[in-house]
Amino acid sequence: MKYKKQVEKWDVFEVEIQGPAAGNPFTDYEVTGTFESKNECTEADGFYDGDGIYKVRFMPSFEEEYTFRIRAGFLDADLVGRFTATAPGKDNHGPVRVANTFHFAYEDGTPYYSVGTTCYVWDLQSDELIGKTLKTLKESAFNKIRFCVFPKHYDYNLGEPRSYPYQGTPMDSSVLTKENFQEYTGRSEGNDWDFTRFNTEHFRHIEKCIEVLRDLGIEADLIVMHPYDRWGFSCMKPEEDDLYWKYVIARFAAYRNIWWSLANEFDLFEEKNVEDWERYAKIICEKDPYKHLRSIHNCRNFYDHNRPWITHCSIQRQDIYKSAEMVNEWREKYKKPVVLDEIAYEGNIQHGWGNISGEEMLRRFWEAAVRGGYPGHGETYMHPQDILWWSHGGELHGESHKRFGFLLNVMKETPGIGLMPYEKCGWDEVCAVPEESTSLIKAVKEYYLFYYSFMRPSFRDFYFDDETAFEVRVLDTWNMTVENRGIHKGKFRVELPGKQYMAVQIKKA
Amino acid sequence: MKYKKQVEKWDVFEVEIQGPAAGNPFTDYEVTGTFESKNECTEADGFYDGDGIYKVRFMPSFEEEYTFRIRAGFLDADLVGRFTATAPGKDNHGPVRVANTFHFAYEDGTPYYSVGTTCYVWDLQSDELIGKTLKTLKESAFNKIRFCVFPKHYDYNLGEPRSYPYQGTPMDSSVLTKENFQEYTGRSEGNDWDFTRFNTEHFRHIEKCIEVLRDLGIEADLIVMHPYDRWGFSCMKPEEDDLYWKYVIARFAAYRNIWWSLANEFDLFEEKNVEDWERYAKIICEKDPYKHLRSIHNCRNFYDHNRPWITHCSIQRQDIYKSAEMVNEWREKYKKPVVLDEIAYEGNIQHGWGNISGEEMLRRFWEAAVRGGYPGHGETYMHPQDILWWSHGGELHGESHKRFGFLLNVMKETPGIGLMPYEKCGWDEVCAVPEESTSLIKAVKEYYLFYYSFMRPSFRDFYFDDETAFEVRVLDTWNMTVENRGIHKGKFRVELPGKQYMAVQIKKA
Repeated sequence: MKYKKQVEKWDVFEVEIQGPAAGNPFTDYEVTGTFESKNECTEADGFYDGDGIYKVRFMPSFEEEYTFRIRAGFLDADLVGRFTATAPGKDNHGPVRVANTFHFAYEDGTPYYSVGTTCYVWDLQSDELIGKTLKTLKESAFNKIRFCVFPKHYDYNLGEPRSYPYQGTPMDSSVLTKENFQEYTGRSEGNDWDFTRFNTEHFRHIEKCIEVLRDLGIEADLIVMHPYDRWGFSCMKPEEDDLYWKYVIARFAAYRNIWWSLANEFDLFEEKNVEDWERYAKIICEKDPYKHLRSIHNCRNFYDHNRPWITHCSIQRQDIYKSAEMVNEWREKYKKPVVLDEIAYEGNIQHGWGNISGEEMLRRFWEAAVRGGYPGHGETYMHPQDILWWSHGGELHGESHKRFGFLLNVMKETPGIGLMPYEKCGWDEVCAVPEESTSLIKAVKEYYLFYYSFMRPSFRDFYFDDETAFEVRVLDTWNMTVENRGIHKGKFRVELPGKQYMAVQIKKA
Repeated sequence: MKYKKQVEKWDVFEVEIQGPAAGNPFTDYEVTGTFESKNECTEADGFYDGDGIYKVRFMPSFEEEYTFRIRAGFLDADLVGRFTATAPGKDNHGPVRVANTFHFAYEDGTPYYSVGTTCYVWDLQSDELIGKTLKTLKESAFNKIRFCVFPKHYDYNLGEPRSYPYQGTPMDSSVLTKENFQEYTGRSEGNDWDFTRFNTEHFRHIEKCIEVLRDLGIEADLIVMHPYDRWGFSCMKPEEDDLYWKYVIARFAAYRNIWWSLANEFDLFEEKNVEDWERYAKIICEKDPYKHLRSIHNCRNFYDHNRPWITHCSIQRQDIYKSAEMVNEWREKYKKPVVLDEIAYEGNIQHGWGNISGEEMLRRFWEAAVRGGYPGHGETYMHPQDILWWSHGGELHGESHKRFGFLLNVMKETPGIGLMPYEKCGWDEVCAVPEESTSLIKAVKEYYLFYYSFMRPSFRDFYFDDETAFEVRVLDTWNMTVENRGIHKGKFRVELPGKQYMAVQIKKA
């Protein structure tokens, strides 16, 4: 039995034991751990990691002494041990939770303002490309990334992944062209997989990616299933799916930065129905002791985000023209955080979902944020080797991402946790005020963040009351400039440059 | 009795007679004319034009000999005469009519593609400013302009008009400021009008404006009533309104370029209801022998454009974000031409309806056009003397209007009359094909006009059938360039520059 005597609270505590390598260690034995301290008692599934090595992982939630007990079908007696969970490091705030109904905060209470991006299979690229992606992420404001466990088969994604999740061999991809790729689906011939034997190297690699993201302060929004498949991973049998879900949870649940995205575009799966998705959800709810965030992403029609296991909406835009503008409506409908995981991508590929301008992407970000939602980025610029950020990671070529840090900093200035749309603003502006429950609604708010989108007023007049003094700042959200405009009381006018993408920030002095 | 012996078909034939100037000549006498030829027999009301002069006007619709008979309460016997209607001049195509259900054509069959602008009270400005407006219009692609008979009281419009429609005196406007103007309404004190006595000079001047527009080939979309009023013209009594309507029709109906807009923003009138609007409509239908186009414009809620007297929808956008994109829906609902008379204005004033960019305005124009509708322009740039094109005319300062001629020329290339949205196009493009009745729907169209709006594809693939050869052109709608891309058959790819506002024009070779 191998384990460390000490681990930070919210880090991964891992116990490694030796066991049989013969037969099918993925299915032959059940391995579990029980972790106890003064404040918690948690049971966690273990998993087989190849070469006769079995592992059980645990994320402690308290700074205290823990004892643990490992049970396994191949063990004559339980193994026991103890370790200490120490204070978290400076950048370790714990897992992200829903906070204030519509928002998020780390477990230590620090507000978390999601600024996400999507690189579906960045994790399955070459070491060199992964290195580039991480460098890009490090220099970015992104604090969440969506990506897949399974490889992806789609336009601009016809290559082989660095590894496959199962033992076996894939279909011969030399037959694929940009014209015929859509003829190949999960039911294509030539795939030869043993869906009861995982490729441990594939999962170890993904773990490594999750760890690096964690160390960069980035949440890993893990897409566990998706329909863009030529290998059969999207149409396994129910017992194979269940085995997969349990394996994924046993391996990854102890990482504090994991979010579970049941699917990308669940409605494009031809062979899954609501019962399947609900079954997977049940497995997660039972098997993930840490209750990480759970969502499911649509292509066309929404999943019912009112389902109790769904912690937040993970939305794809419903209309070409109106996107982030619908956040108000979705907040009202679901009473959960609204995360817009796809509001079209900045780029210039032929597809309409992947060719909006940087200006339009940033505009959608601000619209979403000021309506109390959380926008998501993606980038799809044509590339000589078809390396598109949206799927492969690598380098960013666009303009919007450079401006997200400015937005994130503004979001962080919110008093309390999270913004909500201010209903009394003009019809031709959006305005955010700090989230407050209806029972506590105050007449004059502490803070107002007005956004003018593509409109270009040369000035705006404001009036809140006669007593309160306000500090006024004018933000150019594109050029990232801030102008202090002094302290004002009563009725006051703010001169603006008559340009697009301006905001006015007003806080109680 | 004074009249000319000869007039062009669709021009104004006018008969002038002397009569009493004492009493109230506007109400004391009825004057009518009957105009007869081989093909028509038309009755028209006359009107008092001051100084004992009464006039009857008529627009002949046939090239032939006419006789006429004038009746008046003050005449002992009818007056009779005859004249010849000659062939129309080169630029005289007759009045504009609805054609092909959703479109317009002049009476001689020439398609009319409306590219309108709004200058609410350009006609009531100084001679100098009117001169500037006409110069601007002459150099523009506009073929329709919306404007009012009554002066306008509103932000940026606090000055006095050059004249008033009635005899009397207005309230003292020296009390007005930008802050208090909204406190003054049609019920404000100080106005002293005789609503039974028109100021003939005011109407003579408007006539002159209609004539100059006609000579520039521009339709006069005359807004007969509007709610932006501090003088009481928006809250006259029913019999005063009826007198006004009859006077307006008697004076202006014989002009071939007149369109009747019953109201700007009918839903903002506090003292009119549907019965009033229907009564005015009835008067127009009875009194305008030439059946000029009739519409009524909304602020928020639409009038019921299904009413039989409404020839075309005159629409104000319903949503900040989605505007011209709704043309498909409105075509379907009303089965009439869809004219978007306000889809926000290019400019930079404080109001959200008046500060979109030139790019966005042009984008809305193309969206509307390619969906088989007709967009309208307006401009509201801040100006040191508050001279805004939208109300006052003068000079244009924006960017969109420079590109309307390019659009108009493309519209004129439509085979037949008018474009309709092509339902089989991709979800991420809009495409127009020539308007055709459902019973005649052809598999492969003669002509396709694809528009990519704010999306920026680097290429698009096309396939219609294996036999038909198509000529392909790439249009940059902003830079107004056209690139010929040769003849193509079967499946073909069109390379695009990955820029916004591109269109692809494809016609049978």
